[in-house]
Amino acid sequence: MAAKYYVGIDLGGMSAKAGLFDASGVPLAKDTVKTGKENGYAATVTDLAALVKKVCEKGKVPFSSVCGVGLGSPGIVNGRDGTVVSWTNFGWEDRPLAADLSKALNGLKVRIANDANAAALGEARFGAGKKYGNSILITLGTGVGSGIILDGKIFEGFRGGAAEAGHMTLVVGGIPCTCGRRGCFEQYASATALIRDTKRAMFEHKDSAMWKLAGAPEQVDGRTAFTAAKEGDKAAQEVVKNYIMYLSEGILNLVNLFRPQAIIVGGGVSGEGDYLLQPVRKYVDEHLFVGFDRIPLSIVRADLGNDAGIWGAYALALDD
Amino acid sequence: MAAKYYVGIDLGGMSAKAGLFDASGVPLAKDTVKTGKENGYAATVTDLAALVKKVCEKGKVPFSSVCGVGLGSPGIVNGRDGTVVSWTNFGWEDRPLAADLSKALNGLKVRIANDANAAALGEARFGAGKKYGNSILITLGTGVGSGIILDGKIFEGFRGGAAEAGHMTLVVGGIPCTCGRRGCFEQYASATALIRDTKRAMFEHKDSAMWKLAGAPEQVDGRTAFTAAKEGDKAAQEVVKNYIMYLSEGILNLVNLFRPQAIIVGGGVSGEGDYLLQPVRKYVDEHLFVGFDRIPLSIVRADLGNDAGIWGAYALALDD
Repeated sequence: MAAKYYVGIDLGGMSAKAGLFDASGVPLAKDTVKTGKENGYAATVTDLAALVKKVCEKGKVPFSSVCGVGLGSPGIVNGRDGTVVSWTNFGWEDRPLAADLSKALNGLKVRIANDANAAALGEARFGAGKKYGNSILITLGTGVGSGIILDGKIFEGFRGGAAEAGHMTLVVGGIPCTCGRRGCFEQYASATALIRDTKRAMFEHKDSAMWKLAGAPEQVDGRTAFTAAKEGDKAAQEVVKNYIMYLSEGILNLVNLFRPQAIIVGGGVSGEGDYLLQPVRKYVDEHLFVGFDRIPLSIVRADLGNDAGIWGAYALALDD
Repeated sequence: MAAKYYVGIDLGGMSAKAGLFDASGVPLAKDTVKTGKENGYAATVTDLAALVKKVCEKGKVPFSSVCGVGLGSPGIVNGRDGTVVSWTNFGWEDRPLAADLSKALNGLKVRIANDANAAALGEARFGAGKKYGNSILITLGTGVGSGIILDGKIFEGFRGGAAEAGHMTLVVGGIPCTCGRRGCFEQYASATALIRDTKRAMFEHKDSAMWKLAGAPEQVDGRTAFTAAKEGDKAAQEVVKNYIMYLSEGILNLVNLFRPQAIIVGGGVSGEGDYLLQPVRKYVDEHLFVGFDRIPLSIVRADLGNDAGIWGAYALALDD
């Protein structure tokens, strides 16, 4: 019997990354292509199809032995009918991306999902969530991304649009969010929020070690406060404590609603590892509606980094 | 072929109510029995078994033609293994209620669920959610109860403990909640919260029409502010506006996370009907991550009132 291969694609606003895998989960090749709003929808589909063929060449696998393609796309995605319901940055509305990419690939099966959901599936199947059928991935980056896996499958709601944990309000009337609400989780737990709070603390504490560490306010990053806090800087410790409190409150909401087996924390800030996660575990356990002693919950760091999306897209193709 | 019958039970802290149904959903008889913590677990199981037999007698159906029993119980329930994980008020922990009740009923099949989840299933199958496979019931009473139905089934998380929307924080550091957190949804959207805010507004506005309506602060109920608001009382309108804002914010969080087809609003306050729900619909649509125009959402009033739990328990038995 001929060997079977699959391609997973992580589509983004600047580039699309593709990975070629065999049926047992061995990655054989990777490639990328530039993307951009100016390309338009039709050319993007053509570019993605070319990317699939290119990654096959690179992996020395005939395109004819590829059995399926999975793709994670930004925006609101309806995986059931393969439509990108809405991707504001690219101006896409109701685009039948799965069908169009399939057409461009001679009828090859294509399944799509929201990119954060695909990353969550990647972690759940091949990364930090391997032991759990039910997990939630939270990525702490520019915003707060999230994906929810129930019984091994992406949960996207009835027609997409679910699992937008970054846009769960934690503070009614709080900090305005790009989504039009106020007080959203991502306004408190993203790397962007952490950097904002770090800068604010620096201006309030001119003697803080954060000044030396960062050099200048423009050079503050998500590590500044954590590094200074570990060195005993009081102002930095206050920033970190506050950040951990909001992150934990968001996780608490998700656990009280979904009660998964694991919360997987990814994105830049998760690089702090247990220095971040240990106090989060403590805070969450202490404030849960039903504590860890009654229903176990793991809070762990993500494993796959920026490749989670490709792995998840591969899982989509594999499951089809 | 012999006719098939089912019994649905709604277990509460003061009483248990049972309904006898035929397979087509016709209710044939209802009965109740007193419950109380002082009875203890074993006697409660015996009482529930006797209740099943009594409701059969009342409906003139031989107990032997009952094919299954469903039961909604307060507390954290693991429906998969039929255990009440924890019911604080009765001091129950890890009680195999489904198995024990089955034993007391000569081996009859028994399925259990959390009571709010059972009510949500009742509304989804026989009430306001009939048209939707995916819905969330929110009951605005002493607290805020909730149940989540995905693809026609109760969503309770991996081992129970999910769907506790009343204990989703809307205001980090806000009003203390009985669950140990602060700022929980139920501290702002329950009838209890509404009454608290009504009283506060009365003391701040001695000229408010609410004084005449209620008579005395002790007689304020969930209708006081709504009735006065409809009559044009400014202070009451402010209370109602604030209540609707918090209720909408909680619903927004649930929709951004679960994106169901319908939010079903029950409990005492839902008696206000469209005077309550119309502004909620407007607020939610305006603040959603993806508006109603892209993904439809219905916000409707519950249909089954206090019987939702019995109907849901019946559905549990029917599905087994």
